[in-house]
Amino acid sequence: MADNRIFIFDTTLRDGEQVPGCKLNANEKIELALKLEELGVDILEAGFPISSPGDFKSVQEIANVIKNATVCALTRAVQKDIEVAAEAIKNAKRARIHTGIGVSDYHIKGKFNSNREDILKRAVQCIKWARNYTDDIEFFGEDSGRADNEYLARVIEAVIAAGATTVNIPDTTGYCLPHQYGEKIAYLANNVPNIDKAVISCHCHNDLGLATANSIAGIMNGARQIECTINGLGERAGNTALEEVVMIIRQHSSLGFYTNINAKMLNPMSRLVSDTMRMPVQPNKAIVGANAFSHSSGIHQDGFLKDALNYEIINPEEVGAEMSKIVLTARSGRSALAHRFSKLGYQFDRNGIDVLYERFLKVADQKKEVVEEDLHKLAKEYQPVPVQ
Amino acid sequence: MADNRIFIFDTTLRDGEQVPGCKLNANEKIELALKLEELGVDILEAGFPISSPGDFKSVQEIANVIKNATVCALTRAVQKDIEVAAEAIKNAKRARIHTGIGVSDYHIKGKFNSNREDILKRAVQCIKWARNYTDDIEFFGEDSGRADNEYLARVIEAVIAAGATTVNIPDTTGYCLPHQYGEKIAYLANNVPNIDKAVISCHCHNDLGLATANSIAGIMNGARQIECTINGLGERAGNTALEEVVMIIRQHSSLGFYTNINAKMLNPMSRLVSDTMRMPVQPNKAIVGANAFSHSSGIHQDGFLKDALNYEIINPEEVGAEMSKIVLTARSGRSALAHRFSKLGYQFDRNGIDVLYERFLKVADQKKEVVEEDLHKLAKEYQPVPVQ
Repeated sequence: MADNRIFIFDTTLRDGEQVPGCKLNANEKIELALKLEELGVDILEAGFPISSPGDFKSVQEIANVIKNATVCALTRAVQKDIEVAAEAIKNAKRARIHTGIGVSDYHIKGKFNSNREDILKRAVQCIKWARNYTDDIEFFGEDSGRADNEYLARVIEAVIAAGATTVNIPDTTGYCLPHQYGEKIAYLANNVPNIDKAVISCHCHNDLGLATANSIAGIMNGARQIECTINGLGERAGNTALEEVVMIIRQHSSLGFYTNINAKMLNPMSRLVSDTMRMPVQPNKAIVGANAFSHSSGIHQDGFLKDALNYEIINPEEVGAEMSKIVLTARSGRSALAHRFSKLGYQFDRNGIDVLYERFLKVADQKKEVVEEDLHKLAKEYQPVPVQ
Repeated sequence: MADNRIFIFDTTLRDGEQVPGCKLNANEKIELALKLEELGVDILEAGFPISSPGDFKSVQEIANVIKNATVCALTRAVQKDIEVAAEAIKNAKRARIHTGIGVSDYHIKGKFNSNREDILKRAVQCIKWARNYTDDIEFFGEDSGRADNEYLARVIEAVIAAGATTVNIPDTTGYCLPHQYGEKIAYLANNVPNIDKAVISCHCHNDLGLATANSIAGIMNGARQIECTINGLGERAGNTALEEVVMIIRQHSSLGFYTNINAKMLNPMSRLVSDTMRMPVQPNKAIVGANAFSHSSGIHQDGFLKDALNYEIINPEEVGAEMSKIVLTARSGRSALAHRFSKLGYQFDRNGIDVLYERFLKVADQKKEVVEEDLHKLAKEYQPVPVQ
């Protein structure tokens, strides 16, 4: 089975924390790190230690308290970055250095004013520096999504030969379509001779709303690690949402994959991150949105009340969410109304429900949602018409 | 080119409006409908007229004011529904009736307590009823995502023979993976003998975060209409986000598709819908989130300032968003700091920036975001150290 385990690399505290408005203090970071470990993430990217003294300190403190997860620190392909990162995580039970450099021609020319051969050398050099401190080294080829596959394969082969044990293929700009990202991973899996010595990792951004689909395409084509964040937080439109990839892997058992994540913690974890980082989650967010398990149209409610499986593929309890809600609005039907009345202790016959439904609709057309108080009022006002 | 046009079927006012907390009054619906027409949607699903007198009236008023878009009304496969829907849209310049029935075995048994042959007859019957009122008839096979493909193909063939001009293949529970949904559409495109007489439509739900990817897989395999909503609103985790599929089609010209949508209106439209429906959009929402074009990490900011293309695939102006933002936080680097100082009229040499950067980090480690006021203070306090 080992081959089908998908490692969950959480970067809520690094790529998520970069978000405008999202900055956490050291205590908040430690609280979240401990909860992420409890959730079951395999690798916890704690920060980018060279970036500021405050971030260095947070990474150091996280490295001190985490027992099971691997603690990872980000660096550029710069010797000083790597030294500082290694210092920050030196007390971790399991320490990983995550280092790399831009590998698309956009980045090679536009950002580094360099050339492919020079960048390849710098990529190998950063792995050599990192090896002075740990054997668990992840290389990222920034903007791999737009990189030439043949060149990318050469870089990946060289960094694995130099000691990289995980190779991260980021779609930095969130541009790839799922089949393109999948083909890129398959190309590397099939064309890098020493690829069996490393784990391929997906790091997808959500600029076109495709981060989750791209990550799944990645693992279907040979990747075995997904980099993700709670609620999909991250630069710009964010990263792959941890809760989405975990639940896809769980619900689609035919894919043959599994993760170590405790799904029941997904909703509490989402709320904790949202509250601590002060980043709202929209009601229609998959798995963790407030409405993710709410049914409001009459057609759906009727079918749902007959059998939840008609409209629901995930039992909300499975992901630690509140029970499915039947919300009464002007789109609701008679069966939902009768259901809610019966939960309040009122039983009406078919005629009663017909009469009450017309009255209910008049209330509902005026209000966003018909609540219990309205139902009690309707029930008490109801006088059955005697049969003539 | 006609074959490569993707019709945008907007259901913000029907599937979006079903959402708990989202109910709109008639005036708000008309305002949104007129804006959606200006945005360039091809078909505007205005509501579900049988559901309530208020919804009937809204659909009727929308039908009266819309000039170019097709106005569509939803019904179940019930004669009375279809009569009422036809009445509501009878004044529309272009009127479409959208009718259908559940076609998965889950729905056939769990919801209708029926069998495949009976459901097939009812599907054909509803198209015949609708033909009394319009030639523009869309059939939905509810829960097609979980339906048996061979049976689904038989239903689709029969409803096209009866007069359906669009056939909607909903992934009602949001369960399909992109390759599965694509294969389903391809199966219908290849196995329904009269499929050339109808447009195949994708209607995907976002329960696993895959609605956008599934819709794109659909058009890559033969569909030519996408059903979607602004901000991805809709039942549970919502529907396909209009802004995402439109921008994927625009950015990936190699797919060879186009739509009639005016992309510059996407962000204003998103805000209008969010404000009117009181449904917040999370900051990390693709295309229309507040942070969708914000850059905050040092690595990204440095690259972005050298060339926006290093990190940005869409020019924010193209989608009517504010210009890209460089937000200063403890993750920012020297180049972003120098850039912001120069925009405020301060020029410092390399040494000056080095000194100021250390001071900036101390401020940034204490704050979520370093704002202009902080920069003025830093600049004014700075005293260059004389060279010894």
